Amino acid sequence: MADRNQRITFARSPKGLPVPEDFGADETPIPTPGPGQFLSRTVYLSLDPYYRNVMKNSPIYADRLAPGDVMVGETVAQVVESRHADYAPGDYIAVRNGWQQYALSSGQGVRRLDPLIAPVSTALGVLGMPGLTGWAGTVHLGQPLPGETVVVSACTGPVGSTAGQVARHMGARVVGIAGSAEKCDYAVRELGFTACVNHKDGDLAAALKAACPRGIDLYFDNVGGATLQAVIANLAMGARIVLCGMIEAYSMDSPPPGPWLGPVVGARATMKGLVVYDHMHRMAEMERVVSGWIREGSFRYREDVAEGLASAPAAFCTLMRGQNFGKALVRVGPERA
Amino acid sequence: MADRNQRITFARSPKGLPVPEDFGADETPIPTPGPGQFLSRTVYLSLDPYYRNVMKNSPIYADRLAPGDVMVGETVAQVVESRHADYAPGDYIAVRNGWQQYALSSGQGVRRLDPLIAPVSTALGVLGMPGLTGWAGTVHLGQPLPGETVVVSACTGPVGSTAGQVARHMGARVVGIAGSAEKCDYAVRELGFTACVNHKDGDLAAALKAACPRGIDLYFDNVGGATLQAVIANLAMGARIVLCGMIEAYSMDSPPPGPWLGPVVGARATMKGLVVYDHMHRMAEMERVVSGWIREGSFRYREDVAEGLASAPAAFCTLMRGQNFGKALVRVGPERA
Repeated sequence: MADRNQRITFARSPKGLPVPEDFGADETPIPTPGPGQFLSRTVYLSLDPYYRNVMKNSPIYADRLAPGDVMVGETVAQVVESRHADYAPGDYIAVRNGWQQYALSSGQGVRRLDPLIAPVSTALGVLGMPGLTGWAGTVHLGQPLPGETVVVSACTGPVGSTAGQVARHMGARVVGIAGSAEKCDYAVRELGFTACVNHKDGDLAAALKAACPRGIDLYFDNVGGATLQAVIANLAMGARIVLCGMIEAYSMDSPPPGPWLGPVVGARATMKGLVVYDHMHRMAEMERVVSGWIREGSFRYREDVAEGLASAPAAFCTLMRGQNFGKALVRVGPERA
Repeated sequence: MADRNQRITFARSPKGLPVPEDFGADETPIPTPGPGQFLSRTVYLSLDPYYRNVMKNSPIYADRLAPGDVMVGETVAQVVESRHADYAPGDYIAVRNGWQQYALSSGQGVRRLDPLIAPVSTALGVLGMPGLTGWAGTVHLGQPLPGETVVVSACTGPVGSTAGQVARHMGARVVGIAGSAEKCDYAVRELGFTACVNHKDGDLAAALKAACPRGIDLYFDNVGGATLQAVIANLAMGARIVLCGMIEAYSMDSPPPGPWLGPVVGARATMKGLVVYDHMHRMAEMERVVSGWIREGSFRYREDVAEGLASAPAAFCTLMRGQNFGKALVRVGPERA
């Protein structure tokens, strides 16, 4: 065990898309657990678009950052030293260690991981908060019926690929939206979507019309912006739109206008905001069902792993430009120490 | 009975807000009913904002107009001559006679009126399609709970005043939005709203925040645009927005952008499009309940009546500028011939 704790810190709020200079780095002593605490070693750091919002220091987020603070974030970690009755060295956990190699925890908000049901890295992706987001938004909010057409944006990411594959398992016809031919190919070949539209290929509304001839019954929106507008132009009667993420806006100082809502009225459509924290009680149900699909081979996922904590800022900037392919992770340390 | 039928015709699609020159006028012979038909004499013509959309000749509306066609529209009429088994001279009906003094009907889509339950003019307002719109959007879509804060825009019109008064009867705290101090005064004094905000008085979002300290639980949206954006800035958790009308956009050639939807996600809000034609089966229920409230004095309405068919184009232009006060009607002929 190293005797220093490497950390990536918050340096400043980005202007527009983040750049590596928005982050700092330092080293601190590895802390020692007090009574009721344990120390864990970070194995994987999750990179998620919402961090960009946290870096705005907006009052809508609970996490506020001062320059020099360690960046917040979800991690998979292994317990190395414990004075907590429920956690023993060697245990794998999902915990908010942030962008650093070691952290203390009192156990609050910690989720124990079983490395036998799936690789532990999935606890940050399809079997973690992103997966729960896709699961809850599809199963509980969107409720696709067999034969309905479901469209999912950012469809090769952990939220979108879960939403789309869950909808496929519910009998729906799934059409993805992604930002490259390679991602679209993966969505059809690996994720089992009926079709996938590259939003960089010209007229998205026309491409969706061609791919969804009976209209779109359910749209799981991970991006907002022009993509949402193109979907709204193609709604079926009684359509539902689950508003989940608006990544296009996260790097803007002031919010952009939204879509013209006239067609929402015409289609008698429903738009519903999804916040995953409302659905934490569904984590076990999601984990049980989706991990079963993973083991039987009917549910795929893809990870885009950067090596070493120092690569985290650049990997995050890549994510915010949509240039990652799969769940963005940083391997901070080996899976087994 | 006159021997000529005066008509107001469609001349051209307006550019922006309509002007009287967008209409024409002519006279035709009064038609004679064939077997299974009746002739009725128009008493009241309803003026409704959606006519502006019909005048666009957009394919989303079933009614398409060619220059010289009589303008379409809802009317209250009295049967004058009948070869239809169900209708006799003297009967009052709600019928789509359009902007003319006389028209034939086969009875399709006709609603028989009982002049004893309320003045027949209300069949075009609070006891007609506008009232049904406010009723269905509130009772069946918005479903306000006792003590919730309900905001209604265009709140002195027939849709808004019905939505707001229905919400009040359901135990909600109702805050109106209107475009003049006089209308706001009426909303509080006559309609029983807790408060009413004049959207022409500066910062609407701040005024709504002051009037709705616990946030807005239900918004019945009759206007869209900047008003919708100001409401979205003040949503309570679990808020519902019923999207009903977007009058600000009806006079535009291409649809304007909509609101930034970020706060909809944060509030876990639901937005739902309302089209009144889906709720025609609820007309009898609405008429029974609301007419009872009218007779007992716990539900008010206001009409803005222009005299004579020739005044209809100017009255419609006034409506589209928000300068009417109450349900816009044209008295085409006397109630009793």
